[in-house]
Amino acid sequence: MASFSVILVEPKYEGNVGSVARVMKNFGFSELVLVEPPMLGKEARAMAMHGRDILDNAKVFDDFSSLKDEFDFLIATSAVIATDKNKLRTPVSPSELAEASDIEGKIGLVFGREDQGLLNEEIGLCDLLVSIPASPGYPTLNLSHSVAVILYELSRQGFEKKRKRMKKLRHADKVEKKVLLEKFDSFTDSVLEREQDAKMAKKTFRQLIGRAFISGKESFNLTGLFRKATKKIGK
Amino acid sequence: MASFSVILVEPKYEGNVGSVARVMKNFGFSELVLVEPPMLGKEARAMAMHGRDILDNAKVFDDFSSLKDEFDFLIATSAVIATDKNKLRTPVSPSELAEASDIEGKIGLVFGREDQGLLNEEIGLCDLLVSIPASPGYPTLNLSHSVAVILYELSRQGFEKKRKRMKKLRHADKVEKKVLLEKFDSFTDSVLEREQDAKMAKKTFRQLIGRAFISGKESFNLTGLFRKATKKIGK
Repeated sequence: MASFSVILVEPKYEGNVGSVARVMKNFGFSELVLVEPPMLGKEARAMAMHGRDILDNAKVFDDFSSLKDEFDFLIATSAVIATDKNKLRTPVSPSELAEASDIEGKIGLVFGREDQGLLNEEIGLCDLLVSIPASPGYPTLNLSHSVAVILYELSRQGFEKKRKRMKKLRHADKVEKKVLLEKFDSFTDSVLEREQDAKMAKKTFRQLIGRAFISGKESFNLTGLFRKATKKIGK
Repeated sequence: MASFSVILVEPKYEGNVGSVARVMKNFGFSELVLVEPPMLGKEARAMAMHGRDILDNAKVFDDFSSLKDEFDFLIATSAVIATDKNKLRTPVSPSELAEASDIEGKIGLVFGREDQGLLNEEIGLCDLLVSIPASPGYPTLNLSHSVAVILYELSRQGFEKKRKRMKKLRHADKVEKKVLLEKFDSFTDSVLEREQDAKMAKKTFRQLIGRAFISGKESFNLTGLFRKATKKIGK
């Protein structure tokens, strides 16, 4: 398993450092490394909220190159979009980074200054370059937004696997949906006389259910409604 | 095609509203709707950076329920993790939301207050609930971080399709990689005498290339290196 650290290189504003600590806590990361940070005072602590312990335990370095030996793998982040030409590396997207999950060891996620980002020589010290796909007109994200997106991607796949497992456990949903659709069809047939109208209504309801992420309980409720309605109409 | 608006319900801090405007600009969104916002002054504009036009053009409402008629589809966001029990709805994840791309019309993405989020009755007015999977210990993201993650997800899939198309166009990469591996193998065989050592070296290099997202140019460069090295050793 990889262990991730967030490394901020010469952040200017203490508020941003605090925001980064908070979002790390949100996504379950804890190792913060600061290279030449500003004084961290009241504002940093206010922005960190429940991530204050991460701020308090942050490791401070005064030179980025000295970090190289501390990590097995350094991942640089940059706002610049791939052109392959004058760049040192072709950047990968955050989701491609997250998919490369066979990476092991101590991994540092490196974020640059608010204004200048990372210098080319700093990117050169890293093993991989990640770039968040953004609008070509204004691709530079706020520092803590960049951290939020990268950490979200790294944790997303784990959460989604768990979610899929949960869904499998309650795959009664599929049966419930089938029953709901059957009850809806009988209901529609009992209401609409023209076959074409009924067909269209059924199609519409199917599309709706298809993208509604309906829960078991909701499905159950509607099934009852249509069953009863059909019964009433039949009388 | 869907058109998305970001709706902030009673945001407290003008800095957060500015941050949201910036990240909207980053991901190519422009419609901002504010329900009972604070005074937007210097700080909001400073945080918005190049997203100031979004701030200037924001529509202001003084009642959330009056927005219902303005949109075809309202999507509520909440930090609370699915339990299906006392919740009004089972939330979907941001990536599930982005996958449901057959949604059409005017869609409002609704974000609640910094401290309380959205009230249950506000969630009840919405058509779908999205929740960002986060650490159960501290799932409440900063307002603009939530917006960043949701907009990133909504734009990600478009970017990735474009990226895949680009990659297809230059699928010479696959051939280039094959040539690189062949040249590396010959090189290894010429250097290492014990078959087991050579096998291990080849396996390691393959794994490395597998996760290195190597570009055509990089592949070309290394191929030349190994080809020349083998030639030299052969002499």
